[in-house]
Amino acid sequence: MQSEKEPYVVIVGGGFGGLWAARALARSRVRVTLVDRVNHHLFQPLLYQVATAGLSMPDIAAPLRHILRRQRNATVLLGDVESIDRDARRLRCADGSEIAYDYLIVASGARHAYFGNDHWAAHAPGLKTLDDALLIRRRVLTAFERAEAETDPARRAAWLNFVVIGGGPTGVELAGTLAEIARHTLRREFRRVDPAAARVLLVEAGPRVLSALPESLSEKAAAQLRRLGVEVHTGRAVSAVDADGIALGDERIAARTVLWAAGVAASPLGRSLGVPLDRAGRVLVEDDLSVPGHPEIFVVGDLASRHQDGKPVPGVAPAAKQMGTHAAKAILARLAGRPAAPFRYHDVGSLATIGRMAAVADLGRVRLSGLVAWWFWLLIHILFLIGFRSRLIVLINWSWSYWTYQRHARIIVGSDRSDAKPPA
Amino acid sequence: MQSEKEPYVVIVGGGFGGLWAARALARSRVRVTLVDRVNHHLFQPLLYQVATAGLSMPDIAAPLRHILRRQRNATVLLGDVESIDRDARRLRCADGSEIAYDYLIVASGARHAYFGNDHWAAHAPGLKTLDDALLIRRRVLTAFERAEAETDPARRAAWLNFVVIGGGPTGVELAGTLAEIARHTLRREFRRVDPAAARVLLVEAGPRVLSALPESLSEKAAAQLRRLGVEVHTGRAVSAVDADGIALGDERIAARTVLWAAGVAASPLGRSLGVPLDRAGRVLVEDDLSVPGHPEIFVVGDLASRHQDGKPVPGVAPAAKQMGTHAAKAILARLAGRPAAPFRYHDVGSLATIGRMAAVADLGRVRLSGLVAWWFWLLIHILFLIGFRSRLIVLINWSWSYWTYQRHARIIVGSDRSDAKPPA
Repeated sequence: MQSEKEPYVVIVGGGFGGLWAARALARSRVRVTLVDRVNHHLFQPLLYQVATAGLSMPDIAAPLRHILRRQRNATVLLGDVESIDRDARRLRCADGSEIAYDYLIVASGARHAYFGNDHWAAHAPGLKTLDDALLIRRRVLTAFERAEAETDPARRAAWLNFVVIGGGPTGVELAGTLAEIARHTLRREFRRVDPAAARVLLVEAGPRVLSALPESLSEKAAAQLRRLGVEVHTGRAVSAVDADGIALGDERIAARTVLWAAGVAASPLGRSLGVPLDRAGRVLVEDDLSVPGHPEIFVVGDLASRHQDGKPVPGVAPAAKQMGTHAAKAILARLAGRPAAPFRYHDVGSLATIGRMAAVADLGRVRLSGLVAWWFWLLIHILFLIGFRSRLIVLINWSWSYWTYQRHARIIVGSDRSDAKPPA
Repeated sequence: MQSEKEPYVVIVGGGFGGLWAARALARSRVRVTLVDRVNHHLFQPLLYQVATAGLSMPDIAAPLRHILRRQRNATVLLGDVESIDRDARRLRCADGSEIAYDYLIVASGARHAYFGNDHWAAHAPGLKTLDDALLIRRRVLTAFERAEAETDPARRAAWLNFVVIGGGPTGVELAGTLAEIARHTLRREFRRVDPAAARVLLVEAGPRVLSALPESLSEKAAAQLRRLGVEVHTGRAVSAVDADGIALGDERIAARTVLWAAGVAASPLGRSLGVPLDRAGRVLVEDDLSVPGHPEIFVVGDLASRHQDGKPVPGVAPAAKQMGTHAAKAILARLAGRPAAPFRYHDVGSLATIGRMAAVADLGRVRLSGLVAWWFWLLIHILFLIGFRSRLIVLINWSWSYWTYQRHARIIVGSDRSDAKPPA
């Protein structure tokens, strides 16, 4: 079915950018290899729900090779690509193996970053992978358990203080959901502490939450967060994070659970391309998303830095999908001897959920907030979930959660240093 | 609602024995504290389905404090009980905290054991907890991924050889399901290897699989396993297990994935009671399940050693539930000044599933095998799952798996030494 002479397109990363690129090459005379460090595509917009025990892992993740099983020209490999040799046109993986390519699409995305404060990582986990989500779930659920077992009032309070650092979409979702868990989900299940006494703090260094949205929607989001019970602190930067809590300027806040949603940095793979990067480590791509001087290499998704009409193309799922599809088409154009068209981002609007019956949406001319925005968010996210089964199961889970306030995935597995040991 | 004078019943372990004991004390004038190392009750009979990616964690696990939320006299504590001080009537936990009791029910169960070959543990994980299940899932799924990436034929074959040690119910379930995954689930998803070429070996040192069942059913189970594609080796003991495979007498079998289902040992908590134990470390309990010389301490479930009509009471879920309920009633009898009745195990029959449409059942006079036994098994397990939501979701998952041969939870998370590093 495949000819040895067909050009070899290698895609690094099975997120929205990489997967959409692979699919766009489905009926073409090329061989496609998709390499990822993990075996699954992750529906990242719902990752916070796994972290907060509302959904299970398979609800938002599906094996890449299962998604691509009918695409006969596609091979999926589990591999950790460490560097790119542009001259030899080869990738080198962590296990020493090499993968040759004729065309390369780098879609390795971004990780959360602590911007010079890497020692904060152990105390304030970020949320990018399923492993991150399980870690956060474990810390949050364990904190309530420790509070129930703790007899010292000050230490008990520290277990019931939750700080979310960063007021972007992930921070807002986490804070809103934590407040719901404390006030509703865990109600009546504890005998010694009242989970509703938990404090949830959302800390944002900038002047407002959801800064990518219009100011009016930021204000509505902050109001909805407060209504859910979140203490919103804007314009105050975190100056320290340790095992006992955080420092906000001169103020110490004792908190045993701190979550990091304050920033991401591009995948280190961008650096090995040896081309200009922006401040966040993203690759400054050409009009057609290829790399300067290397028309056979494309960068898409969160790793690509691209401006349009004076504004950066945002690091959101629709942009990554559009870029992945565009890079695939550019390769096919080049193979056919045609020039590749320039990439244009088609803005489909912004949407952020805050918590139960609370969300904001910016759809260009139309702006929604509150219940209407929440229903809209629900609809969109169900529609875009990959695979029929996930949609049905998620719908059942959400309906059940909606009526019962319950979160079915409240299972603690694994252990890590911070929650295995009691405070000194 | 609770008086400080009500007697304090502490239950260690939230499995079938401990949870049923707690429930049997619901409407009594006692204070109940249930302590467990994990936050959830686990429906252990279906744990192999989480290990083989057919079910997600929350399908078979529910938070203990959620299950007991309406039982106002019950407190749930997350804690790792390390020793029992019989004279002071106190438990000591790993974090140094202590719990006092008037009556104690020890239901801490059993762990898998390697009987003097503890160095096998790293190469042949057993299956008792959700963490174990996630580890086994990761190893099994990663093995197929490594095979796809491997170019050396011998090493590739070793990644496609799966050995299950132990022919009891867990071993039979794991082997049967692995064969189904290789032959059906992963079909058409790989480009370089054929998963159906995988070998699944079930090794049992004794003369037959499922030795607790009548001989005719063992034979039927072995025949059904072979039909599913499992190589059944009985009467041969494993003499070595290492990173490269196993030794079966003089024969070496290269296998990168080895699973342990060959035996369990009682929880070490039994030893700290300072009373006679049987060879497997279980506590030889009195007629009423109390400990000799300590009528205020009861041992139930897999940690209790009890014979009835010349046969040991088996380590199965119905026996643990009956024991838990009995111990609770014995405590209430003692509080009322009445003598406790002797425990009698009511045998409800044995049931073992083997794989798709294959099972065996021994219901006393009636013996079933094949499709009928499989439907019966399905019905029973759906009925006994805790919580309506789990039942509905599991039913949907199973129906979907039945028609599509798919297993939705094929998500690899975490990493461990053995699958993170390539073979040397």
